[in-house]
Amino acid sequence: MKYGPRGLHVCPHPLVSPAAERLRYILGEDDDMPTPTLFTEMDTLQHDGDEMEWKESARWVKFEEKVEEGGERWSKPHVSTLTLHSLFELRTCIQTGSVLLDLEGYSLPQIVDDIVDRQVADGLIGPELREKVSFVLLRKHRHQHKKPIHLSLADMGKSNNSPTSECCNRKWCVSTCFSYDVSDPAQSRSMNDISDKPSTDQMKNKFMKKIPRDAEASNVLIGEVDFLDKPFVAFVRLAQATTLGGLTEVPVPTRFLFVLLGPHGKGKSYNEIGRAIATLMVDDLFSDVAYKARDRDDLIAGIDEFLDEVIVLPPGEWDPKIRIEPPKKVPSADMRKSVLNLNELGQVNGTGTAGGPGGGEDEEMPIPHELGEELQFTGRFCGGLWLDIKRKVPWILSDFSQGFHIQSISAVLFIYLGCITNAITFGGLLGDATDNYQGVMESFLGTALAGTVFCLLGGQPLIILSSTGPILIFEKLLYEFCKSNTIDYMELRLWIGLHSCLQCLILVATDASYIIKYITRFTEEGFSSLISFIFISDAIKKMVGSFKYYPINRVFKPDYVTTYRCECIAPDQAAAMAFNVSVPLADDNMTDLYNITGLDWSQLSKKECVKYGGALLGNACKYVPDLALISFILFFGTYSMTVSLKKFKTSRYFPTKLRKLISDFSIFMSIMTFVGLDMLVGLDTPKLIVPTEFQPTRPDRGWVVMPFGKNPWWVYVASAVPALLVTILIFMDQQISAVIVNRKENKLKKGCGYHLDLFWVGILMAVCSFLGLPWYVAATVISIAHIDSLKMESESSAPGEQPQFLGVREQRLTGILVFVLTGVSIFLAPVLQYIPMPVLYGVFLYMGVASLAGIQFWERIKLYLMPAKHQPDFSFLRHVPLRRVHLFTLVQIICLAVLWTLKSTVAAIIFPVMILGLMVVRKMMDLMFSQHDLAWLDDILPEKDKKKEKDGKKKKDHKRTKAAEPESDEEIPMDTIDLPSAPDPSVTPPTQPPV
Amino acid sequence: MKYGPRGLHVCPHPLVSPAAERLRYILGEDDDMPTPTLFTEMDTLQHDGDEMEWKESARWVKFEEKVEEGGERWSKPHVSTLTLHSLFELRTCIQTGSVLLDLEGYSLPQIVDDIVDRQVADGLIGPELREKVSFVLLRKHRHQHKKPIHLSLADMGKSNNSPTSECCNRKWCVSTCFSYDVSDPAQSRSMNDISDKPSTDQMKNKFMKKIPRDAEASNVLIGEVDFLDKPFVAFVRLAQATTLGGLTEVPVPTRFLFVLLGPHGKGKSYNEIGRAIATLMVDDLFSDVAYKARDRDDLIAGIDEFLDEVIVLPPGEWDPKIRIEPPKKVPSADMRKSVLNLNELGQVNGTGTAGGPGGGEDEEMPIPHELGEELQFTGRFCGGLWLDIKRKVPWILSDFSQGFHIQSISAVLFIYLGCITNAITFGGLLGDATDNYQGVMESFLGTALAGTVFCLLGGQPLIILSSTGPILIFEKLLYEFCKSNTIDYMELRLWIGLHSCLQCLILVATDASYIIKYITRFTEEGFSSLISFIFISDAIKKMVGSFKYYPINRVFKPDYVTTYRCECIAPDQAAAMAFNVSVPLADDNMTDLYNITGLDWSQLSKKECVKYGGALLGNACKYVPDLALISFILFFGTYSMTVSLKKFKTSRYFPTKLRKLISDFSIFMSIMTFVGLDMLVGLDTPKLIVPTEFQPTRPDRGWVVMPFGKNPWWVYVASAVPALLVTILIFMDQQISAVIVNRKENKLKKGCGYHLDLFWVGILMAVCSFLGLPWYVAATVISIAHIDSLKMESESSAPGEQPQFLGVREQRLTGILVFVLTGVSIFLAPVLQYIPMPVLYGVFLYMGVASLAGIQFWERIKLYLMPAKHQPDFSFLRHVPLRRVHLFTLVQIICLAVLWTLKSTVAAIIFPVMILGLMVVRKMMDLMFSQHDLAWLDDILPEKDKKKEKDGKKKKDHKRTKAAEPESDEEIPMDTIDLPSAPDPSVTPPTQPPV
Repeated sequence: MKYGPRGLHVCPHPLVSPAAERLRYILGEDDDMPTPTLFTEMDTLQHDGDEMEWKESARWVKFEEKVEEGGERWSKPHVSTLTLHSLFELRTCIQTGSVLLDLEGYSLPQIVDDIVDRQVADGLIGPELREKVSFVLLRKHRHQHKKPIHLSLADMGKSNNSPTSECCNRKWCVSTCFSYDVSDPAQSRSMNDISDKPSTDQMKNKFMKKIPRDAEASNVLIGEVDFLDKPFVAFVRLAQATTLGGLTEVPVPTRFLFVLLGPHGKGKSYNEIGRAIATLMVDDLFSDVAYKARDRDDLIAGIDEFLDEVIVLPPGEWDPKIRIEPPKKVPSADMRKSVLNLNELGQVNGTGTAGGPGGGEDEEMPIPHELGEELQFTGRFCGGLWLDIKRKVPWILSDFSQGFHIQSISAVLFIYLGCITNAITFGGLLGDATDNYQGVMESFLGTALAGTVFCLLGGQPLIILSSTGPILIFEKLLYEFCKSNTIDYMELRLWIGLHSCLQCLILVATDASYIIKYITRFTEEGFSSLISFIFISDAIKKMVGSFKYYPINRVFKPDYVTTYRCECIAPDQAAAMAFNVSVPLADDNMTDLYNITGLDWSQLSKKECVKYGGALLGNACKYVPDLALISFILFFGTYSMTVSLKKFKTSRYFPTKLRKLISDFSIFMSIMTFVGLDMLVGLDTPKLIVPTEFQPTRPDRGWVVMPFGKNPWWVYVASAVPALLVTILIFMDQQISAVIVNRKENKLKKGCGYHLDLFWVGILMAVCSFLGLPWYVAATVISIAHIDSLKMESESSAPGEQPQFLGVREQRLTGILVFVLTGVSIFLAPVLQYIPMPVLYGVFLYMGVASLAGIQFWERIKLYLMPAKHQPDFSFLRHVPLRRVHLFTLVQIICLAVLWTLKSTVAAIIFPVMILGLMVVRKMMDLMFSQHDLAWLDDILPEKDKKKEKDGKKKKDHKRTKAAEPESDEEIPMDTIDLPSAPDPSVTPPTQPPV
Repeated sequence: MKYGPRGLHVCPHPLVSPAAERLRYILGEDDDMPTPTLFTEMDTLQHDGDEMEWKESARWVKFEEKVEEGGERWSKPHVSTLTLHSLFELRTCIQTGSVLLDLEGYSLPQIVDDIVDRQVADGLIGPELREKVSFVLLRKHRHQHKKPIHLSLADMGKSNNSPTSECCNRKWCVSTCFSYDVSDPAQSRSMNDISDKPSTDQMKNKFMKKIPRDAEASNVLIGEVDFLDKPFVAFVRLAQATTLGGLTEVPVPTRFLFVLLGPHGKGKSYNEIGRAIATLMVDDLFSDVAYKARDRDDLIAGIDEFLDEVIVLPPGEWDPKIRIEPPKKVPSADMRKSVLNLNELGQVNGTGTAGGPGGGEDEEMPIPHELGEELQFTGRFCGGLWLDIKRKVPWILSDFSQGFHIQSISAVLFIYLGCITNAITFGGLLGDATDNYQGVMESFLGTALAGTVFCLLGGQPLIILSSTGPILIFEKLLYEFCKSNTIDYMELRLWIGLHSCLQCLILVATDASYIIKYITRFTEEGFSSLISFIFISDAIKKMVGSFKYYPINRVFKPDYVTTYRCECIAPDQAAAMAFNVSVPLADDNMTDLYNITGLDWSQLSKKECVKYGGALLGNACKYVPDLALISFILFFGTYSMTVSLKKFKTSRYFPTKLRKLISDFSIFMSIMTFVGLDMLVGLDTPKLIVPTEFQPTRPDRGWVVMPFGKNPWWVYVASAVPALLVTILIFMDQQISAVIVNRKENKLKKGCGYHLDLFWVGILMAVCSFLGLPWYVAATVISIAHIDSLKMESESSAPGEQPQFLGVREQRLTGILVFVLTGVSIFLAPVLQYIPMPVLYGVFLYMGVASLAGIQFWERIKLYLMPAKHQPDFSFLRHVPLRRVHLFTLVQIICLAVLWTLKSTVAAIIFPVMILGLMVVRKMMDLMFSQHDLAWLDDILPEKDKKKEKDGKKKKDHKRTKAAEPESDEEIPMDTIDLPSAPDPSVTPPTQPPV
């Protein structure tokens, strides 16, 4: 009863128990070689009259899977809930039974012989039972296999009335598993039912891929027999892991063997003991102990240590029949091992418990992430840029090789559609704003050029460049200024571009990007929410616009269809003549000119009618039927289908891989579906129109803009002033998007390159200015969508283990492909022209909504609508009072509202400056909120950080003197913080990607 | 170490442990008086410099709620996860500390004095510490209160920078809870911070309503102090529960007090011990022990018993930081107590564990429900009817009084809309089929009449009567027969109705309804799925129909609007004259007649044009713009909004009550929303048209049909033959719907009345035949919707406890109201005419889909699409192999397909006979499936049942001889089965109602 002195002792107990000390010794011995993973199979002895066989009843890789007797199937993996009883009984069993460590075993019969010999030698069983025990232990093992589908179908037809069903079941089992030969129990050697080689069933078992490659097996054999009057217990560790024929379900070599045979009547107890040892064997800590144990007492110390760590559920608050789903995360074995070495086991036990009240839980702080060296101020000329290049060069090969994956295809399709929609939208708007100096053609070309270059050479190839709103507004104002002051627009623009490029390069050379470490979650979320809202509102505006563009005749009565018409009425002849003279007609109209008097006015189309000066008369003229409504159906359908298909990933239907595929291609599938629907309905919905000929939109401009000649010389110099505005705009837009993309929770491994990014954006500014193409910067929403469509998850290994988010497929291939495709879209026009615009607006809406998901700000807004008791268990809610959380959110909402208002006015041009404003607001919030609250809701600003670090250390020393003080609100013990942190991944789980 | 001999002993342990024996003795003593529920509050001692106070840190009603230090709020209720350590330490504490049972205490100071006296007397503390301990124990108690919103808003503005935040928090606490006066520790009596009367905060605490009325409190006080060198432990039970001032958060009298003070440095351990005793105090079994314990050893036995039942989670498979949500169901305390008396504690412990493998789990059979005496064959004339009446009479008053509830309003609105939609649909179809002998007017009147009478006097007033498909087809065939054989339809129909009524009455008198006990889940589900599919397909058909009725002009080009027109062309003058002569014109057309030659043809509407013989010319004539698409939007919108709002009940937003309201009124809200949208758009969508004048649809028939005079005498006799068909039809339709409504999982309390139901359906047949109204019978889908909209759930009592489904609001009021409303709908026409038909089709679709949910058959169909590992943990899947489940489902699908095909042909008239066919198929399935499988998937047929019962007993005896035989597939130990059972409620949880 060794457990006693430690577990049962009075409240002040010794710091390290003897068990822990013992374990520390053996585990510390040679920690360099990790022990293999254990697969545990538990077989129970089945009696059928005089025949006996071992039948698999449960298995463990990490969690328990049980054979559902009646269902003939595996249960879902679940947490093994044990009784305290069975653990104590197991402890007694190990204490009293035979423990054979490092037994040399090459076959099961030999091992069984050794076990029985030892039992006889120890006087635990009489020698007369030797044969009987050996016989039982060598019976065949029947495993729970997945039945091949053809057998299961053949079986379906079979009549299964009550007396025959058992027989039928038996027949099936025999035929698929082993042939069952009744051997004579008297013969000692021939009684062996076990073959030495793994059977084909074993080899074919697909379950094998769920078990790590180097795994070894531990077999637990539990049975009731009639010839024993007390339990027969043996724990065996083999010197070498050996494949013992059909003992294990899968061809994994066996290392451990636990045998418990006992008299009849206690089957349930035996089973529970079996489950207890099986659970122990897959426990990370105990399996280490089992591998390294020197004697029986080491094993018992292992059990005691396990007992010391177990979590207990009160019987009245939990139904033991509930199978507990495996948790998302379990404490790592290393952590548990390190605890052993920490000399403060007792205390840690206390901390480890859920909801342990009181005392200093508040000390727990969000783990601040280090941003790495990317944003450190080097102080050297181009120091940051040089580091960026050094960081990126080693990855060049993998930047391409990692792109070859099916996921890339869906990502390319998705982002491509987003990009061309953006290109067309902004192209159209730019064309309007600049009298077609820059139109859709330029937009396509520029997107393709800038994007390809950036993805090929940029620091963060996951960033997608695109036209953005502020730039559009700038161009518009600039063009108007030029027109009213008769300055050549293209030339001025070129000079602004050149100046801006220069300014960007200066920023790069001076490592100016380091200031973005002051961009905390507050700023970042404000910016990305704003962009998301703009996406959403644009999509909806476009949709509402189509109701204006295709007005519905709301007073239409089907019966009075006869009264609705729209006729083209000829103008007076004289008026027609006047029209001919006054209007300068293009060449192709000349033929019409001669015919105009002979026109059949009623045959003219609406446009022709207007062109020739006819008047449209009738109550149907200003209405367009059906188009607005079908547009709405396409728009909303695309959006909701995408959302539903995305969610399909977590449904129960279909195998995981298919679901993942459906989820990955959800946008593509939705687009195809609704393009199909549109074609089926056949209505004249507005379609995507791609330029088909390679020429500038405005015929009077060429492909290259000349720098000199059209404007006075001072314009070349003065353009540096507007260029400054453009530079700020570009800098902020680019770098905040980059910060968002480089967020810690995206688990990027190849590092980022803020300086390199800015370098290329600057260079591309200059190139685009020369070619008269629009300017490009990182587009937040599309970049996030890009990241999200490239997220990787681990294939879940052990049954029941949750797949982990591994990171993003960081490569340059998808980006390059997207932009090359954008470039060749001009030739894809015949295909693209089938895509209705409302479908693309639906995609826009989805992008906006999806990029909102997972933003903590958005989660906090939702909290306003939730009663406190229904709020999710966010870690910041455990640590910051709700009213402070609400206040913080309110400040953010107000900031956003101000930004939104600004954006809608001409002031939009100073929009990037307002982002700087956000940073100032954040700075002022240091006065409103405690650093403790801010650390949970946002990040600490760098100076505060360093200051607090010092404070923290001081306080910590102070703290040790008054240990029982739980209210340490003002104390922030952050020891290793150097830089501001990325957002807390626990709040925005990366495994729930929005896109 | 008393636990040892029992817990730690070798595998074969004594049947009853000493602890259990002890408990059985004290719990068995006087079991007549139940012990009160305990509310436990745990307060920890907080130091602030020299000041001390007790701060509430957690509380338990049934589950643990913790004060989130930083969040200043209550955590969600969760299962208390303890460490084994703390439980053992608690055991030691009780062993070594002072235990004061039945202490006479009237105030806290006196109780504290008693405790300290006892400690001093036992030599546990020195007398010099008396004052200090008393002082600590009498410090003020600060509770975690919900903050009033105005204070919290006022607080929001306050600056909360790091150094001041703590101070600010303190200020608030002081102002809202207690004023903090620093008293002199030297003064013995004045040091008391506790007042005797409950404070206003206590009285106002809303949490009080979560605590049962007779509850008593147990207070746990945990603190670290500097003057003790070993723990000070006291467990106090007061002789009388006493309100001890501000000790407890709520004004609940305190019965138990647990005090643990100890030296500094072990705060975490003390807290865990406090949580352990608090968890024990709310444990049903231990609280009983605590109330009845005679001495310290009884308490320790209680702890041992608790330890013996705890559930253990392995540390490597569970993260102790996860707060476990309270389970849906916990094992009842009575069950646990009875286990104590069963002398087989060890075995039961084994069974109680999740996933205990092997041994005889398969014995567990679904609990068969008894259908009660309703369906027993009495053998007397009208025996069943008489029993039905006897059963129903006592409820007459409550049948009305229970109807007064807000839920009834939503139910009435919902069912009313379903009924009038049905009445209009069937009325329209009947009018078509019978040349308006029965039209919408008759349909409304008949529905109102039959429904009101049935709900007022029927056996199961929750059943809603309606026209059904088979009846419609019968009428159609009958009318065609009459027309071709020149037999008077109305008179023949009257005679069929009379004969059918007579036959129904014979069935009632002979208790023929007893045969429906052969209707198992198989038949029932087949029938109700079929009806649901018909609803769904009808709704979709109607919707598709509107695309045909309002064809879309798919080649319309907005620009060529000038070419689309539809003109009315005048026929030749001669043709017009001929037309005038040939067509018999009604009076109101006479005026037109004179004008016809002077008509402006182009001004005529489509209908007029056709009427006057004009020709419609133009490419717009056959198209109707917008209406089809807006219909689709209204249809689909209503459906999806209803579904979303229904789901809203389980969302996190808004308080529970509001969500419940939204969910209850979801259909009403959806209808109102889309009626509003329709009005906003203003298109001429098809609207609900209700007859406005009280007169027969066909002017040449009166309100009463005369039985004689129009047909030859033999028709009166021969009509008995078709009447037989109608009788079967009515009987099956009515009784299966009744079985579905009376399902056990609906938890109806007032019994059913199959005979009484049939009686009134028969009588109403006759009455309706006389009045020339359609015949009515129970409508499955609407009846289910009625039930679902009246479901009651318990208000959750203890925080974290799941609300339980209590039953259905069984009353006659909603039904009567629905039908009275239907009757007066004729006067509601001005309001109802705003409802577009597509909205009502959406409601139809929803009804169909919702009534599918919760049908096990439907769940099993879904299994086809799920890989085995993702399938939900249905109990039948644990016991029946998947391929047998699939086979069973396949048989059902085939049956349904056959029925569907039949339904779509003329054979629909023998449709009810096919239901009998289903029962035959079910009978044959006894040959294909084992009774064991059928018991899980379906119910056992009555004879099989009795046979098996005998078999079962025999087998059971046999079984006892071979205990370790787990494969008892063919064995069905059902001891008390008399009648076939209602469906397994575990599969179709009644708390997830479809409507």
